[in-house]
Amino acid sequence: MSVYPESIDRLVSELTKLPGIGEKTAQRLAFHLIDAPRDDITALADALVAVKDKVHLCPVCFSITDKATCDICADPNRDRSVICVVEHTRDVYAIERTREFNGLYHVLHGVISPLEGVGPQDIRARELIKRLNDEAVKEVIMATNPTPEGEATAVYLSNLITPAGIQVTRLAKGIPIGADVEYTDEVTLIKAFEGRKQI
Amino acid sequence: MSVYPESIDRLVSELTKLPGIGEKTAQRLAFHLIDAPRDDITALADALVAVKDKVHLCPVCFSITDKATCDICADPNRDRSVICVVEHTRDVYAIERTREFNGLYHVLHGVISPLEGVGPQDIRARELIKRLNDEAVKEVIMATNPTPEGEATAVYLSNLITPAGIQVTRLAKGIPIGADVEYTDEVTLIKAFEGRKQI
Repeated sequence: MSVYPESIDRLVSELTKLPGIGEKTAQRLAFHLIDAPRDDITALADALVAVKDKVHLCPVCFSITDKATCDICADPNRDRSVICVVEHTRDVYAIERTREFNGLYHVLHGVISPLEGVGPQDIRARELIKRLNDEAVKEVIMATNPTPEGEATAVYLSNLITPAGIQVTRLAKGIPIGADVEYTDEVTLIKAFEGRKQI
Repeated sequence: MSVYPESIDRLVSELTKLPGIGEKTAQRLAFHLIDAPRDDITALADALVAVKDKVHLCPVCFSITDKATCDICADPNRDRSVICVVEHTRDVYAIERTREFNGLYHVLHGVISPLEGVGPQDIRARELIKRLNDEAVKEVIMATNPTPEGEATAVYLSNLITPAGIQVTRLAKGIPIGADVEYTDEVTLIKAFEGRKQI
């Protein structure tokens, strides 16, 4: 039985549905919000609803956008011959922050995972293959995560794409910048040795 | 310059106004919310506005409530001869969770702090004194924090209340349960020695 007023309980319960927000944090946030200016609260509530109302998937690359097609797909300066395939929209923004990649993206919204019952039909795989027919794509870069599921998905898609005469590449694996060799796990070290380059 | 759609930027910016929510956490929450069911989002938005609409200060003790007076002040089984003075509403709930205290509360909403320009007129001090005139109060327990400001506030209020023939007490200071004597700070150890009791 809670000792809080009912409307606080309800807010706490809604806040704890968010990732990484436990009971204690939700209570702290709720008490902060009670003291916060009314305008701040309504601005937050409006922003929440707006993001659901306005943000949708880009019909080309399945990244998120609040326009008809996303800014990247609509940009005439992007190189349309390269498509970088990622698991989630977050990955698009991570790669964009590097300012190194100037091609297009394709967001799968998941990876093939037989254990979790996710097959090729559950991710945006068919849509990727369709894009390759339509456009003059020369290279597809597989930027799925270096996990068993990410690897399996990359290999599965590669087997579908390669016969069409399109080059399929995979992001390099190795020791991350700033890490210690001493503390690097064995699989990463093996990959780093395999991928070694002449200096 | 952000690469996110505008409505996501706005949500991230509103979320970062919350305590303990930085840019990274706000982005993670925003992306979670984009994928969350519409009903969850509107429930959260509604709960936010409702807490501001319904929750107000109890006119007796200045704790928060969504009723005319708070559940504690309205409870006929509470001992009206003891008032526990706390800094914040959160302290009321912390003490209630112990199920040890059966009196009433008074929430100051701050402490006297000359450095921060907070004087007795900026906290609910006058309202406390007024309650003592109205009611048959025998004891006032000062449960402000054991900080310089909390101590000063307790002493200030005590000087006002004691002449009226009402007993004023202060929560005990000492080593918290489960702590190590070795790692206890000197001031706490001094207080623990001063407050030692026969066993």
